[in-house]
Amino acid sequence: MKLAELGEFGLIDRIAQQVAAAPSVPLGIGDDAAALLPTPENLTLITCDMLLEGVHFDLNFCDPHSLGRKSLAVNISDLAAMGAVPRHCLLGIALPAAVPVEFMDGFMTGMLEMAGSFGVTLVGGDTCASKGGIAISITALGEQRPERVLKRSGAKAGDLVYVSGTVGDAAAGLKELRSGRREGFLVSRQLDPTPRVAAGVAVAEAGLASAMIDVSDGVLSDLGHICEMSKVAARVELARLPLSDEYRALCGDDLSLALSGGEDYELLFCVPQGRGEAVEELFGRLGLAVTRVGAIVEGSGIELVAADGSLHQPGARGFDHFG
Amino acid sequence: MKLAELGEFGLIDRIAQQVAAAPSVPLGIGDDAAALLPTPENLTLITCDMLLEGVHFDLNFCDPHSLGRKSLAVNISDLAAMGAVPRHCLLGIALPAAVPVEFMDGFMTGMLEMAGSFGVTLVGGDTCASKGGIAISITALGEQRPERVLKRSGAKAGDLVYVSGTVGDAAAGLKELRSGRREGFLVSRQLDPTPRVAAGVAVAEAGLASAMIDVSDGVLSDLGHICEMSKVAARVELARLPLSDEYRALCGDDLSLALSGGEDYELLFCVPQGRGEAVEELFGRLGLAVTRVGAIVEGSGIELVAADGSLHQPGARGFDHFG
Repeated sequence: MKLAELGEFGLIDRIAQQVAAAPSVPLGIGDDAAALLPTPENLTLITCDMLLEGVHFDLNFCDPHSLGRKSLAVNISDLAAMGAVPRHCLLGIALPAAVPVEFMDGFMTGMLEMAGSFGVTLVGGDTCASKGGIAISITALGEQRPERVLKRSGAKAGDLVYVSGTVGDAAAGLKELRSGRREGFLVSRQLDPTPRVAAGVAVAEAGLASAMIDVSDGVLSDLGHICEMSKVAARVELARLPLSDEYRALCGDDLSLALSGGEDYELLFCVPQGRGEAVEELFGRLGLAVTRVGAIVEGSGIELVAADGSLHQPGARGFDHFG
Repeated sequence: MKLAELGEFGLIDRIAQQVAAAPSVPLGIGDDAAALLPTPENLTLITCDMLLEGVHFDLNFCDPHSLGRKSLAVNISDLAAMGAVPRHCLLGIALPAAVPVEFMDGFMTGMLEMAGSFGVTLVGGDTCASKGGIAISITALGEQRPERVLKRSGAKAGDLVYVSGTVGDAAAGLKELRSGRREGFLVSRQLDPTPRVAAGVAVAEAGLASAMIDVSDGVLSDLGHICEMSKVAARVELARLPLSDEYRALCGDDLSLALSGGEDYELLFCVPQGRGEAVEELFGRLGLAVTRVGAIVEGSGIELVAADGSLHQPGARGFDHFG
């Protein structure tokens, strides 16, 4: 069956039937707007990301299920980077009317699976016919107490710079997909990223970080955002960049994807001196790698520190949509 | 200058500079997520609408300024239909990199003008390059006390059905645009609709309605949504449909656009018997026309009542994106 046969309202009903009720959602899918019950004394954190066919995803590389998972994951990652607990989301999706209903079913199964993993309820959105490719727009909402919210702007000279997990994998996975591979660790890091929610919330609630961001544009670009917003500079020790064995096997000593490749959705954050050990203990308990990769210094911009201690200016920084 | 020269982050900075600070937005544009301060004892109402070039708008018919205005207006209208006070919005927009910066400036001027008219603050969003046409996704948030929120599901047999303003104008305006006209009342009703915020909030706060919706898909389709959600039927008196002089001049006695044309963004609502006079007084004070067009009855579906009292089943109902 094609979406054209199911119709817009049939599709909305089909989606609504897959969503369980939640106490924080007095009114969910099916009205002009959804109604949410905010938790007293919490801020609402809200973010929105678009994913376009041919720009953000290629249906030759991903199936509808992993596309659904990733579409929500990248938004949840933005909430994690604020230290927020994800709560709700809205889905806007435009598809050609000739798309089979099975595509949408696969997409929704993946998206709702990701939502369920992080306690997120789909509360509304918009569906429409596209005359071009598929366009997805997800808005995700989370909550956190005001004093715990982690901005990009709080880094201070002397802070340590940490990153969770390993970096460069997602960009390396895209390189593999483009050369014909369809599976493996790097490919799954590209197609099915895991937002670091538990870690982001734990860092925020323990008050361990001065600033945080998720690695969506690339380490240099995202650390650059922290530096600009905090009016500081950073030094990154190249020898300390956490690389997976699979990254090393594919890229050898070439760090360009680890520095400038995006979409790892790891957390990059700044930690006041003296709190590094507490960060490492916390991540140990969470079972997630964390690595000190550099430090915040006075000034502006980012310098790279080579293994021999020499300083270098980075070349390309990261992804710019219009660049 | 093209967007390609300004770059993604240059564009975001340019937008951020046009947005004033607001007490309810502790953290606005420029971080991973925005932070909003909910008003105690209010629900958050949230809605999302996509607008796609070639589907929802045609750049041969509209300029960037009116596109910006309408893109936000249709979302604010959804909040008005819940009786909510609009507060915040997020903008996701995908544009080809070759689009001139002036297009985006015009769009933002229009959108922020509409936002300012209704006390709405832009708090975040996403910008990206499109390989196809322009895709816009706006999420709008509002607030209202739980007991005042107006759903689609509260209509009861015996209620009166009211509609604000006049209906069919926007569809008639689209017909005019397609035949070459570029201005006039009907065209402006299509290109620059006014969300009925003051009326929606006033009806909710006065507790005058049992159910409300905005006329986006067409009177029959939208009243049909109320009937389905409320498990009731409705009768519409054709002779009572509020038509503008301009609609009558273009369409004569043909009511098809008034019944099934969408995008008027008027309020359609159900009022318990005995409260009709209060509704008419309230709209009199607001200086907005309001017309009783029918009644809710038991059963399902919609019947049309002709001037001679005979009953008819409607034909086409309204817009279905995949239909």
